[in-house]
Amino acid sequence: MAQPGVLTPQNEDFPRWYQDVVAKAEMADNGPVRGTMVIRPYGYAIWEHIQAEIDRRIKAAGAENAYFPLFIPESYLSREAEHVEGFSPELAVVTHAGGEQLSEPVVVRPTSETVIGEFMAKWIQSHRDLPLLLNQWANVVRWELRPRMFLRTSEFLWQEGHTAHATFEDAATYARKIHHEVYNDFIQNVLGVQVYLGIKSKSERFAGATNTMTCEGIMRDGKALQMATSHELGQNFAKAFDIKFQDESGTAAYCYTTSWGASTRLIGGLIMSHGDDNGLVVPPRLAPIQAVVLAVRDEESVNSATDEISRQLLDAGIRVRTDRGRGSFGRRVTDWEIKGVPIRVEVGPRDLAEGLVTLARRDTGEKVQVRIEEAPARIATLLEEIQLAILQGSRNALASRTADVSSIAEASEAANDGFARLSWDLVKGEGEAALRTQAITVRCLQRADGSMPENEDEANLVAIVAKSY
Amino acid sequence: MAQPGVLTPQNEDFPRWYQDVVAKAEMADNGPVRGTMVIRPYGYAIWEHIQAEIDRRIKAAGAENAYFPLFIPESYLSREAEHVEGFSPELAVVTHAGGEQLSEPVVVRPTSETVIGEFMAKWIQSHRDLPLLLNQWANVVRWELRPRMFLRTSEFLWQEGHTAHATFEDAATYARKIHHEVYNDFIQNVLGVQVYLGIKSKSERFAGATNTMTCEGIMRDGKALQMATSHELGQNFAKAFDIKFQDESGTAAYCYTTSWGASTRLIGGLIMSHGDDNGLVVPPRLAPIQAVVLAVRDEESVNSATDEISRQLLDAGIRVRTDRGRGSFGRRVTDWEIKGVPIRVEVGPRDLAEGLVTLARRDTGEKVQVRIEEAPARIATLLEEIQLAILQGSRNALASRTADVSSIAEASEAANDGFARLSWDLVKGEGEAALRTQAITVRCLQRADGSMPENEDEANLVAIVAKSY
Repeated sequence: MAQPGVLTPQNEDFPRWYQDVVAKAEMADNGPVRGTMVIRPYGYAIWEHIQAEIDRRIKAAGAENAYFPLFIPESYLSREAEHVEGFSPELAVVTHAGGEQLSEPVVVRPTSETVIGEFMAKWIQSHRDLPLLLNQWANVVRWELRPRMFLRTSEFLWQEGHTAHATFEDAATYARKIHHEVYNDFIQNVLGVQVYLGIKSKSERFAGATNTMTCEGIMRDGKALQMATSHELGQNFAKAFDIKFQDESGTAAYCYTTSWGASTRLIGGLIMSHGDDNGLVVPPRLAPIQAVVLAVRDEESVNSATDEISRQLLDAGIRVRTDRGRGSFGRRVTDWEIKGVPIRVEVGPRDLAEGLVTLARRDTGEKVQVRIEEAPARIATLLEEIQLAILQGSRNALASRTADVSSIAEASEAANDGFARLSWDLVKGEGEAALRTQAITVRCLQRADGSMPENEDEANLVAIVAKSY
Repeated sequence: MAQPGVLTPQNEDFPRWYQDVVAKAEMADNGPVRGTMVIRPYGYAIWEHIQAEIDRRIKAAGAENAYFPLFIPESYLSREAEHVEGFSPELAVVTHAGGEQLSEPVVVRPTSETVIGEFMAKWIQSHRDLPLLLNQWANVVRWELRPRMFLRTSEFLWQEGHTAHATFEDAATYARKIHHEVYNDFIQNVLGVQVYLGIKSKSERFAGATNTMTCEGIMRDGKALQMATSHELGQNFAKAFDIKFQDESGTAAYCYTTSWGASTRLIGGLIMSHGDDNGLVVPPRLAPIQAVVLAVRDEESVNSATDEISRQLLDAGIRVRTDRGRGSFGRRVTDWEIKGVPIRVEVGPRDLAEGLVTLARRDTGEKVQVRIEEAPARIATLLEEIQLAILQGSRNALASRTADVSSIAEASEAANDGFARLSWDLVKGEGEAALRTQAITVRCLQRADGSMPENEDEANLVAIVAKSY
């Protein structure tokens, strides 16, 4: 249990609880320029695991990583008018470099879309160059006046995938593959979050997209978080950037393109999906530290047993940290709880005398004594149990906080404490506009059985609506 | 052998050969803003391997990754005057963001040194917080008027480590550990490059450093390339940023700090250390593609044998690419040679009939026939042989292109075609200045036996001088 006063309770003030966790778990600090953040080693280690897991899935889907420049000529951002309108007030502009004023200002990329479009046009000649499957991991900048760590920052880290295909079907299939096999697979099986999968309504779509697919999770305060999106862009983007290919008959045609992204926002999602009044809860498959071995007292025999147990866990492939007995035991327990380490292995003199250690689960708080020699195997099993329990908890939360309703009025009411699900026919048009006046948006559209629709014109769709981050 | 005319020969025009390789091996393209580059998938895959290898070594040395913001308030860059003088004309400055002029312009980081200094001061309170060992992987910007892909670009990718220690000895030991166990170990055992290890002369040192350690490699045109550096900063940096700690007796003292970095420049080093008239030569441990399996002809039986052999190599843990028989065989061979893939596995119908395939080494051009079932084991062994042969070649090149001389005049002469080694006593002061007028610099100082000196005041040091990138 956290010491009273360490964190603001979630019920009392959720945004403040969030800030407290970010600070006390040593996830991030405010940067010197407003809206920027310093991602501290513990937060960055979580990001490295997110990155590695997503990157592995992107590569398995056949895309290759590349790197495009940070700076974009200002003129590029007016090529696709619809696109620029979405970003213009968010741009950071470099006017001076090399000690003088630039003849043409350059923009710090809000995305690399325009540059990638230019190079796709250059690299693609024939159908043999397709599909072209590119991804980039990079920092991007979108000026934020109301920043919030990990959720909205002027600079953030992300990946953006951009692909070009010969046919509509190939592009659509690929965008869905990324949505399903990269994003949902990672979010569910590593991040331990159950999300609604669906398509965006026309008004919520990414500018220029013909279809946007999303993963919508529920946070502990009942609001939605869009965790990753995958877009079909039809030929819109290819036409704006002149991305053409010669088909087998020698005829020139525009490509069909997709784009898809996920960002450090996922860390915000991790915090708000699983965190409780004692701090973070990090699912074992994602955790930089899966188990911390704590000496209960600062005694030589206890410390050396702690070291030895750590070594055994390390040998068993568990990501482990050793905490020798310096300083208050209660305070150290609190700190590891705030950081959300899945298992605490408490090593005390009395237990040791009997050949035992105590395992404490972060997610449930349960404690169990095990024989030292059995600890590595028990911990490995327990880590998997915790992973599944966290996902099950997320499933239950999503289900219990989704209300099936049959009017806009009921949806408005339900959205004060979670998601509302209702017939899309009741929402589209005026309903959507009415909800928006209350800051409630259509998070996604699904079929009645929860599966992905082809498009928003399918009959009998349901809309999931909520307030959101 | 490359088809005539594909690449400019090294002897004819080395800089043009370099540009040709970068373009034809699909390593990088010029970005739309002058001085920036697009790192293409093959170049970026090499960078990912460099990054993974260096990152593993940095973590083994105990440092943790973190991320600091891209934007730095302009005022920060005047804190350490000596430092800013080195960078000021190279800075890119953001004056407008969020649709309006900023009250204080922000600079795009040329390094994160100043921000990291600020946060070190904040995070370090007591001796228990030391050592603080941080590293960052990020993009940085230093405006370049004469850009050259990978070697000098306005934006480049790098890692910068920054550490704080309680004592001079601890800081010095750590900076040397990084120099030795991270940089030299990577450069020698993965990049396959033999370098001179030494310290910089006072005039070549990093601004603010009390000691700079370097790894200096020789390129195929006889010029030196500084491949990575590790700096001891004494208390200079700590004083500029007020990085203090309380020691065990409760007395406040400034920390001793270090910094160290390596960048995408290493890719330039890779190209120019090993590349020949047929293109890149990538050492197997670094190669994104260690073996390419080529069908000699576009026939069903040959293509399916090619697929099957690829699968076996993949199962044996070899990074493999399959090239089915579409298009000219000669052209495909040339393309894989330009990309420097260590082993080509040629699968032809006549060989197949006898149960054989041909292995061709990129480094020597040697070909050998092996039985198909023995191919995976033979290739695994051959990859290690190639790795060692490449390093041996680099050792020989460094030795044969280093002239032991005994005057500044001889050193000037020798530096037209490689390194010159001579007594530091002959160089220091006027000699160093005289050499510099001919664009020859002291690359490093060593003891006569090649080992690392404590500092430049040690007796009997030798200077390695050369022209350089």
